[in-house]
Amino acid sequence: MKILFHGQNATNFRDGFDRMIDPAHTIVDVSDALSAPGEVEQFASADVIVGIKLDATMPVPRQLRLFHAPAAGTDAIDQSLLPAQAALCNCHGHEDAIAEYVFAALLARHVPLMQADADLRRKQWTFFAGRPNALRTELGSQTIGLLGFGHIAKAITLRAKAFGMRVHAANRSAINSEFVDRVYSLSELHAFLADVDVVVVTLPLTAQTQGLVDAAALNAMRPSAFLVNVGRGPVIAEQALYDALRSRRLAGALIDTWYQYPTPTQTECAPSTMDFAALDNVLMTPHMSGWTSGTVLRRQQTMADNIARLATGRPLQNVLKPASTS
Amino acid sequence: MKILFHGQNATNFRDGFDRMIDPAHTIVDVSDALSAPGEVEQFASADVIVGIKLDATMPVPRQLRLFHAPAAGTDAIDQSLLPAQAALCNCHGHEDAIAEYVFAALLARHVPLMQADADLRRKQWTFFAGRPNALRTELGSQTIGLLGFGHIAKAITLRAKAFGMRVHAANRSAINSEFVDRVYSLSELHAFLADVDVVVVTLPLTAQTQGLVDAAALNAMRPSAFLVNVGRGPVIAEQALYDALRSRRLAGALIDTWYQYPTPTQTECAPSTMDFAALDNVLMTPHMSGWTSGTVLRRQQTMADNIARLATGRPLQNVLKPASTS
Repeated sequence: MKILFHGQNATNFRDGFDRMIDPAHTIVDVSDALSAPGEVEQFASADVIVGIKLDATMPVPRQLRLFHAPAAGTDAIDQSLLPAQAALCNCHGHEDAIAEYVFAALLARHVPLMQADADLRRKQWTFFAGRPNALRTELGSQTIGLLGFGHIAKAITLRAKAFGMRVHAANRSAINSEFVDRVYSLSELHAFLADVDVVVVTLPLTAQTQGLVDAAALNAMRPSAFLVNVGRGPVIAEQALYDALRSRRLAGALIDTWYQYPTPTQTECAPSTMDFAALDNVLMTPHMSGWTSGTVLRRQQTMADNIARLATGRPLQNVLKPASTS
Repeated sequence: MKILFHGQNATNFRDGFDRMIDPAHTIVDVSDALSAPGEVEQFASADVIVGIKLDATMPVPRQLRLFHAPAAGTDAIDQSLLPAQAALCNCHGHEDAIAEYVFAALLARHVPLMQADADLRRKQWTFFAGRPNALRTELGSQTIGLLGFGHIAKAITLRAKAFGMRVHAANRSAINSEFVDRVYSLSELHAFLADVDVVVVTLPLTAQTQGLVDAAALNAMRPSAFLVNVGRGPVIAEQALYDALRSRRLAGALIDTWYQYPTPTQTECAPSTMDFAALDNVLMTPHMSGWTSGTVLRRQQTMADNIARLATGRPLQNVLKPASTS
């Protein structure tokens, strides 16, 4: 089969991929713009495309049997443009990375390593056990609330339990996990938010989730609570989040998913029209939480496995749109 | 019974303790120096002393039945001065706190939250998923080596497994844990050290452990390895540690337990005669790892439980020296 890696994003998953698949396959690398000689023809005749974009400006991949996104999100892939015999699959494998990101931030709120180090270099034993005001709090005594309960929330749950935290979760569909101490439906959102110390939003963006965490929801949270968004920015209402942080109605937040993103032509931009950078109670990161060498490796393994399945006629995994069998 | 809280350290465990014990008991608070009127007599006639010090300059507590250290270490309590009918007990309860401290530092090595935040405030999406050089590593892919396998190492093990790490352990006595992937004896110290990415020293200071991690042991570690000491400073040879860090033979270290400590009269001091503060590959903290409100609460519970046991004639827990029954 001809396996085509399309564009810069796919390139991240290219290194070592040859050795993960049957050497009988051919791998072709093409640019985002498909502007080099022959790239349009290569795209149009691929059996498998690894990429994150398919729109009407691009050639029709008429022989395609598998469009594989090396990511969870497939927003930029227009499924109506896929030939009937092509399946669309995605990848997870980022949940362990995101859990590490979340716990790095949560633990840093309790353990003042940087301040302790700076002080001890000046011979100040500020946080020395037994000294007044040296006592810190423990993450393990807190309750974490997971809004959404997919792969990411499950990975966070395992780590939260190891730290002794209570775990609450709210989800549209039922939650069946021995590790979750209390379950809420989305109609109980305010009660869920009122009863936790940390809220982690892991929801994807859909018509149902957009703006779900609005001003009233933020107002239901404890004033001491900490809000994390590793789902999608607009699940939390932009103005309401900014207002809650600026007024300190909300103690703090860690925001990884945003309202504005850079583009190929504008690589620098603020992540919101609102001036989050002027706030000192938000930790701002550039949609990085899942981006590790481990995530890349696990996604390569998913894609290589699906290519082997396709080549041998076995059912694909992570199928978002099946191939038509007509 | 008369329960005496002796000195500043014991005071840390005083708040709320009244409500944890039978109100029939009396609690008396006395100063470290026992210099206020009546304090010597109170000390001499106590049934229970909560404190960290007993030496020949202090009155003999002739009615004492329980000397309870609100800490694990009892180095400053001269057991030969305890009356025969008095037991000596200690407290743990710091292991969860120390595990949080260790994982805060380990995760911070992989997740560049502060740099990401500073950059995004300047509209720089440095660590944006998919960008060149944005890919980070995962703690979960590493192997952690625990030197010593008591309460602290077990708490670290549970969290390490939740993150997907491999866990190796070296200990004097046998290790029986389903969570440890590979076990070493102390005679295999160099082989143990050579096979891990992170080494955590949790050993107490004894004649056998002093200087156990010497220049040869440090030389056995991987150049990329990270060394954590939450046991006792001198378990790692001071000069050898300094040399290994300065020469970058060792990539980095997190040191919480040291070679020099402040005293009541000299509250500021460097933690070593060597200039660790001039090194940028060491994170220096002031013996703070176990010091949390959770540790205080758990130790209060241990002491209140032992007081109830003593009052009702049941066996004490955490006994370092039993009461003589003769």
